[in-house]
Amino acid sequence: MPSLHVDLGHRSYPIHIGAGLLSDGSLWQALRGRSLRLITDEHVAALHLDAVRSALALDDDAVRVLPPGEAQKSWEVAGSVQDWLLQTRLARDGCLIALGGGVIGDLAGFSAAIYQRGVDFVQVPTTLLSQVDSSVGGKTGVNHPLGKNMIGAFHQPIMVVADTGTLRTLPRRELLAGLAEVIKYGMLGDASFLDWITHHLDDLLTLDPVATAEAIRRSCEMKAVIVARDERESLADGKGGRALLNLGHTFAHAIETHAGYGDWLHGEAVATGLCMAADLSARLGWIDADDARRCVDLIARSGLPTKPPGDMTPQDFLHNMALDKKVAAGRLRLVLLRAIGDAVVTADFDPSRLAETLEHFCGAPAAQ
Amino acid sequence: MPSLHVDLGHRSYPIHIGAGLLSDGSLWQALRGRSLRLITDEHVAALHLDAVRSALALDDDAVRVLPPGEAQKSWEVAGSVQDWLLQTRLARDGCLIALGGGVIGDLAGFSAAIYQRGVDFVQVPTTLLSQVDSSVGGKTGVNHPLGKNMIGAFHQPIMVVADTGTLRTLPRRELLAGLAEVIKYGMLGDASFLDWITHHLDDLLTLDPVATAEAIRRSCEMKAVIVARDERESLADGKGGRALLNLGHTFAHAIETHAGYGDWLHGEAVATGLCMAADLSARLGWIDADDARRCVDLIARSGLPTKPPGDMTPQDFLHNMALDKKVAAGRLRLVLLRAIGDAVVTADFDPSRLAETLEHFCGAPAAQ
Repeated sequence: MPSLHVDLGHRSYPIHIGAGLLSDGSLWQALRGRSLRLITDEHVAALHLDAVRSALALDDDAVRVLPPGEAQKSWEVAGSVQDWLLQTRLARDGCLIALGGGVIGDLAGFSAAIYQRGVDFVQVPTTLLSQVDSSVGGKTGVNHPLGKNMIGAFHQPIMVVADTGTLRTLPRRELLAGLAEVIKYGMLGDASFLDWITHHLDDLLTLDPVATAEAIRRSCEMKAVIVARDERESLADGKGGRALLNLGHTFAHAIETHAGYGDWLHGEAVATGLCMAADLSARLGWIDADDARRCVDLIARSGLPTKPPGDMTPQDFLHNMALDKKVAAGRLRLVLLRAIGDAVVTADFDPSRLAETLEHFCGAPAAQ
Repeated sequence: MPSLHVDLGHRSYPIHIGAGLLSDGSLWQALRGRSLRLITDEHVAALHLDAVRSALALDDDAVRVLPPGEAQKSWEVAGSVQDWLLQTRLARDGCLIALGGGVIGDLAGFSAAIYQRGVDFVQVPTTLLSQVDSSVGGKTGVNHPLGKNMIGAFHQPIMVVADTGTLRTLPRRELLAGLAEVIKYGMLGDASFLDWITHHLDDLLTLDPVATAEAIRRSCEMKAVIVARDERESLADGKGGRALLNLGHTFAHAIETHAGYGDWLHGEAVATGLCMAADLSARLGWIDADDARRCVDLIARSGLPTKPPGDMTPQDFLHNMALDKKVAAGRLRLVLLRAIGDAVVTADFDPSRLAETLEHFCGAPAAQ
């Protein structure tokens, strides 16, 4: 079983990756005897709850099953989780387990972060997206009508358990959405990994076990290195900080805000955002137009969207991006590519090139 | 102007103490030019908002004035603060200022902790209680119907400004409530400070400027040392950790839960809790009965309550204390005294002595 170690001093934790881990008793040994609560959603509960519940001997009161969907990642639901934790008297030295995708992980992580000023939590991601990305790095939170992930906390899990067997039960769309983040890691940090993905795309699309585990391991490893360097996203532009992980995300958040959370999967919006970031980088002359085309082609070959919603205008993008967290001191910062495998965070770009990218992707005639 | 430095590595911050600091332009220099928001309540706004607003050149949109009272420290109000911060687009590198007592400080601190996963905040405490206690240490949060401070985060301010001039406008009850925390510091950590308080009680009750500043400085200093040793309250029992600061507080929280937040001021409940902790320590034979009496006498001389609400029973205490955060693995832990000036956190005490203390203070006949 491959294991990674995220090195964050006394907040360090292991990530276990492999098939069949949910029912691997030895993994859960450390949690036996502790006061435990588990949060999941109806879809995941139907498929995987029994395995975890029996491995941990959880009774019904210790499990909260939410409706599926992004709408659960709200202030109101976070409040109802606090009610439940207090009513069932989770102790301060207890532990909250998140069994599910990114929505469950973000909500449960935020709940653990603020319950009695912070209790332990364990991430058990069951989607490719959450296995490669949202379970690593300690970002937790909920959405707000004015923006995604606008309310939250940094709270590291004490352990991540990524059972690749759960991916066999994923809807195709969600599998592809996760693949978008894998492609992101190749684009932002490792050109040889992007080549590897391009050559193994068919294996990844058919969930070949060896290729899948390798893609998860390399993605998590890359993210772990960046997170260890910049746990709270405080490094300045150009310092290789955590903001690099947002390649494609500023465009993606604008799409998600426009479409309403849930209509577009996060990974689908990221896929389009990656295309837009590559396009803008090429228009700025930072990468070759061929390189940008190679990225867009890989995303298209994967079956992921390469265009924003048809009714979205350049103005919609600009409006929604102004609320994005990456606006510092009034200037829009973006993650762009200096080369394939070499991303940079910068506010130092020609805004008329951004306008061209937006017009190109929104289908309006280009300004020149 | 006396200044203290709270040493927490890269989260270190200064505490400035003195008369007239609110309108001291040099103090506010560091915040000029930043995106700022200020939260206060109607009482404090009427007295002190103009001074801070003009020192910082804040416009109306940047100020939120809440109704006074503990009821504002709720999940719902915390949500409405997030709405406001997002609607007025506070940037991620902005700063939130808390102008007021503990309620405003705890609410604004929690709001800053979770807004976009954490923004800077500045504490400007305007009550004696918040100047000596709740503005130091980074504890933030809101109440829940099932318990006080049950939802929150550790989030350190970047600066604390304690203007002793604001204490002249405090209602007498609130001044005394703050004095209870000053007495707590003497009891838990420094017998010579307790003697100093006993000798200067009249000066403190008449707000003599020198004695007042000295009491605030010594209390903050003592708390700062303990917080620096144990920022997130993770030290085990008996290690001199942050839990020591809760001397009297387990009893106090039970009183506040029973009375409904706001009927008893926090410091009044703490005063009675200090009496109960001293009484129990004496019944256990850890301190002399005379020492316990000396503490109770000082609290009574201050004009603070030494008995819980008349309708409160030992069972009410036991029920409410079981929800307290100091219950670890099912055992009730209390902060008790091994000597005056030497507190200890322990679950290792005879519960029948606790029953005697509860019966004594609730006015029921003692069990033996």
